[in-house]
Amino acid sequence: MKIVPAKITNITSYRVIYGDTDQMGVVYYANYLRWFERGRSEFLRQIGLPYSAIEQQGFNFPVVEVSCRYAQSARYDDVVRIETELTAVGRAALSFSYRILRETDGCVLASGATRHASIDNSGRVTRIPKTLLDAIEASAD
Amino acid sequence: MKIVPAKITNITSYRVIYGDTDQMGVVYYANYLRWFERGRSEFLRQIGLPYSAIEQQGFNFPVVEVSCRYAQSARYDDVVRIETELTAVGRAALSFSYRILRETDGCVLASGATRHASIDNSGRVTRIPKTLLDAIEASAD
Amino acid sequence: MKIVPAKITNITSYRVIYGDTDQMGVVYYANYLRWFERGRSEFLRQIGLPYSAIEQQGFNFPVVEVSCRYAQSARYDDVVRIETELTAVGRAALSFSYRILRETDGCVLASGATRHASIDNSGRVTRIPKTLLDAIEASAD
Amino acid sequence: MKIVPAKITNITSYRVIYGDTDQMGVVYYANYLRWFERGRSEFLRQIGLPYSAIEQQGFNFPVVEVSCRYAQSARYDDVVRIETELTAVGRAALSFSYRILRETDGCVLASGATRHASIDNSGRVTRIPKTLLDAIEASAD
Repeated sequence: MKIVPAKITNITSYRVIYGDTDQMGVVYYANYLRWFERGRSEFLRQIGLPYSAIEQQGFNFPVVEVSCRYAQSARYDDVVRIETELTAVGRAALSFSYRILRETDGCVLASGATRHASIDNSGRVTRIPKTLLDAIEASAD
Repeated sequence: MKIVPAKITNITSYRVIYGDTDQMGVVYYANYLRWFERGRSEFLRQIGLPYSAIEQQGFNFPVVEVSCRYAQSARYDDVVRIETELTAVGRAALSFSYRILRETDGCVLASGATRHASIDNSGRVTRIPKTLLDAIEASAD
Repeated sequence: MKIVPAKITNITSYRVIYGDTDQMGVVYYANYLRWFERGRSEFLRQIGLPYSAIEQQGFNFPVVEVSCRYAQSARYDDVVRIETELTAVGRAALSFSYRILRETDGCVLASGATRHASIDNSGRVTRIPKTLLDAIEASAD
Repeated sequence: MKIVPAKITNITSYRVIYGDTDQMGVVYYANYLRWFERGRSEFLRQIGLPYSAIEQQGFNFPVVEVSCRYAQSARYDDVVRIETELTAVGRAALSFSYRILRETDGCVLASGATRHASIDNSGRVTRIPKTLLDAIEASAD
């Protein structure tokens, strides 16, 4: 997979609700993947190509791999900062990395990565749409 | 709305996972609505017309109203019994009621109800499909 | 239950993620209850008494009843506006009402209500804490 | 980390509900982590030491790392088989691996792994409780 030449990063934030926590008193581990999704959704909006537009063009980028390391716990009412970076763009795949930080002190709570396939409406793997490549290039300048 | 003449009830069960709980140490209140959905999904399977078949026939029954009363808390690792009853079938709507019980002692944890519209693929309100009316009638015998 | 004399309303917003939707292409009905929670959490912060502070003082306000009517569907990437109002405060209970609107056109997507018991650390029903009554009174001026 | 000498595997199953899906028409990727949790919860019950008992003894095994590869999509109403294996037990950590299969045809939908720290009530890393080591040993025979 080709490494993206210039770093493009999106930063967004999210306030933890009660429904995100579990009985250990911290955010349930699966919910970090929701934040990853929020991060890449905002990333795509930032470069001018929201995911809804990608879908309208007949493409989907399902997650084919995810990993997450948990360092510290996010807690109820914390504002977390979600940092999303596009790390690689291949012929028919792309990768993001993420960091989740606590807004108040900048402590890194978790970090992770996702890899996505590019598929068309019929579910077949297909080239990354040109509109996305153009949007990435324009934003990397 | 026409009241369904004979009582048809489905009983299914579910084991609470950690991810269902919140930091109060009990199941988060929104998750009971997931159990209601599980209940009516099993109800439809029981009468021989799974919801996936209804969808394939071009119909959807989106929830237009829900209510739930919480009496006791469901907790991690509890097995809850979900009792679902079809309470009314109208021209273009249907209603279910639910009870959530703790399997070990039969204690009623919550009770609730949903009302559903019948819509077609284009999102328009439409008559309840005949296949469903037939399935209900056959099961009520 | 005593009706709150002056209207206090909180307005907050939320961007729908993919994980909030279901295969009908709209937000899953249980997720509106997460928004209600977000709304009342922001309401309490607005009057100067975040729910985390209430918990630290040894109180909890579990939901004992919820209802929701769904009028229009929230969709992926919609920004929804959550309007939360405190509608009643009793001796050991309080009630909120909610409206979920689509930010772009102000269309009301759903409306609902919750009723909460006031309980202490041991799970017993107890008087609404005085700190909350004071905060409500100060905000209603 | 010490590799567990004998393979202990738990097999459990789960019926996908509508609330597990997203608008791509498949199960949302974060929900597989809920299945992993269900799997290890059943694993611990199988060896005679339910997680709730571990908690009562003052221990927690928070996830410190998770990974998941998605091969095929789980869909609404699918019954998925969750296979959970304990892969390693260290001084203060343990690891599980998982496979998610479609019940009807045995197709592997996803596979993953989690690593857990052993912590005590005060959140400090601590030795794996002896009760767990004993339970593992007894089951491996």
